[in-house]
Amino acid sequence: MEISKLGEFGLIDRLTKNIKLTNKTTIKGVGDDSAILHYPDTEVLVTSDMLMEGIHFDLTYMDMYHLGYKAAMVNMSDIFAMNGTPRQLIVNIALSKRFTVEDLEEFYRGLQQACDKWNVDIVGGDTSASYTGLAISITCIGDARKEEIVCRNGAKETDLICVSGDLGAAYLGLQLLEREKTVYYQQVEDIQKRLRKAQADGNAQHIAALNDELSRMKDFQPDFAGKEYLLDRQLKPEARGDIIAQLRDANIHPTSMMDISDGLSSELLHICKQSGCGCRIYEKNIPIDYQAAVMAEEFNMNVITCALNGGEDYELLFTVPIGDHEKIEGMENIKQIGYITKEDLGAMLITRDGQEFALQAQGWNPLK
Amino acid sequence: MEISKLGEFGLIDRLTKNIKLTNKTTIKGVGDDSAILHYPDTEVLVTSDMLMEGIHFDLTYMDMYHLGYKAAMVNMSDIFAMNGTPRQLIVNIALSKRFTVEDLEEFYRGLQQACDKWNVDIVGGDTSASYTGLAISITCIGDARKEEIVCRNGAKETDLICVSGDLGAAYLGLQLLEREKTVYYQQVEDIQKRLRKAQADGNAQHIAALNDELSRMKDFQPDFAGKEYLLDRQLKPEARGDIIAQLRDANIHPTSMMDISDGLSSELLHICKQSGCGCRIYEKNIPIDYQAAVMAEEFNMNVITCALNGGEDYELLFTVPIGDHEKIEGMENIKQIGYITKEDLGAMLITRDGQEFALQAQGWNPLK
Repeated sequence: MEISKLGEFGLIDRLTKNIKLTNKTTIKGVGDDSAILHYPDTEVLVTSDMLMEGIHFDLTYMDMYHLGYKAAMVNMSDIFAMNGTPRQLIVNIALSKRFTVEDLEEFYRGLQQACDKWNVDIVGGDTSASYTGLAISITCIGDARKEEIVCRNGAKETDLICVSGDLGAAYLGLQLLEREKTVYYQQVEDIQKRLRKAQADGNAQHIAALNDELSRMKDFQPDFAGKEYLLDRQLKPEARGDIIAQLRDANIHPTSMMDISDGLSSELLHICKQSGCGCRIYEKNIPIDYQAAVMAEEFNMNVITCALNGGEDYELLFTVPIGDHEKIEGMENIKQIGYITKEDLGAMLITRDGQEFALQAQGWNPLK
Repeated sequence: MEISKLGEFGLIDRLTKNIKLTNKTTIKGVGDDSAILHYPDTEVLVTSDMLMEGIHFDLTYMDMYHLGYKAAMVNMSDIFAMNGTPRQLIVNIALSKRFTVEDLEEFYRGLQQACDKWNVDIVGGDTSASYTGLAISITCIGDARKEEIVCRNGAKETDLICVSGDLGAAYLGLQLLEREKTVYYQQVEDIQKRLRKAQADGNAQHIAALNDELSRMKDFQPDFAGKEYLLDRQLKPEARGDIIAQLRDANIHPTSMMDISDGLSSELLHICKQSGCGCRIYEKNIPIDYQAAVMAEEFNMNVITCALNGGEDYELLFTVPIGDHEKIEGMENIKQIGYITKEDLGAMLITRDGQEFALQAQGWNPLK
């Protein structure tokens, strides 16, 4: 159904009719000039991110459901990265005429599923038109008790540097999707070329066969067997609220924390800069998934470079006092990768063969 | 300067280095995974809006400074419309390569000036790339004591319907700008046509004269004398925090309120729908500025239609108990335009000659 058929308010009604508010901090959601929230006992955390078609996502391989899911998750990730709990989401979306009501419903289904996972309420937003691509802006509101909040500036010398999950897989998933997209377009182009030749030759049988071949390309399904994890990491990232809960249960309070969206190097440099310290991390300790290692090999890439500079992992990077070493040691999904040093020692990576390299923020730069 | 020269973080540093935090509800602004706010005694209000190039603004006649100012003001307007006070702003912007660092600085100067006017802190945001146009998403956070908040659903039968300022001028300002833009392009096209003819004729003198004429078109300045107010209303709208203060000082508590962004008709229908009531408003009472009336005449438009359906006025529409009639009567910048009725009487406009028309939401629909 065309969106113009419903109009702005009809569309908003349709998209928001199933929204239930479950948080006690949500007083009023969609439908007035603003949402009304209630945070008498905690600090309010607010983060907002923009996702632009062609820059942050490619609808050739990202469907609207996954786009909604990811857009919500990456914003919740920022709230978890403050050691907070996400509570509300505001969704702005601008789309061109090529999108249908059903596309938007799929997007909202993805949003809702991500929200349900962490008990977050959709409380508002703006649905608008765009001349060209799809633009999304999500604002996530959460809270934390004042003493619980973890910023980027609290890392201290001798603190242990930890990361959750594994790194580099989302980037390799993207490379894989890009490769298959290229393969697809090359095949289509090749058939079209042969078709033009057959047409020039007037070979009716060839023409029919090639037209058949071309129409079968619509069902093109790349073989991703054995690489599912990489795709999941790229298309359906998860905010690590489980790690936050795990740390809380173990009574561990990180001294600094952030989520890894632009690559480990870039994020570690942020923590070092804001905390006024240096760091040493060890290549051998950087957690890498088996599928990522295999894929990097296939692409003839260094998997550690993918982990350092790849981005979009949405894992947590944090520091804890050295006294927590043993507690952390026994925890699943958390890896100690190095430690905090004096500022003048720089931010260093120690390779497997003992060489030292200064970390550089080559992270994904959307403005380049 | 090209934005890619600074990179994302260099750019953010440059844009945010002069930001001062002045609100006691702001604990931490730009620079971490989220902003940290503190609202122990009041309800938190959050609103967010998207502005897309070519849909919501046209950079042919809107400069970056005014765009920043307007983007901030229209969001603050939503907080005032809840009878709240805006406190923080989060700014997401995505731009293509044609924009420079200086463009962005102008945008931020506009934002900052609007924020300074209402003592609002810029506490975060996302600066990113766009393939084509400029996309802006602003989130405004404010607060109000619970008992102060005014929603759209509280209008009661016999309540007086009031509006601040005057209506329709922003729409007429837009028409004026659009007309001058058309005139400009027609003149350029006309010169180019004559130039092509002169070139075909090989008339060197003509060619030189026409090239001169063409280059002078860069300094084209339409004559807006006597129409400044219309342009101001379109390019530099003001959020009516002054009206909120005025009502508070007079101890008037509106029963319902919203800001007029999509035209009076559309907004009145929202209030009627959400409050379960009808209304009668009087054409003769709708506040119209003199310049708007003259401009409408010139365009052969009905100025009341502009007021009802034009949009972008950012005035306040509100209802008050009939007992406040005398208090309101004496207040500057507020006009009583009608009253609330039973739902089954519909939402009616009474014209100067006593005819009744049902109000229709023909308001500006960005999705059509």
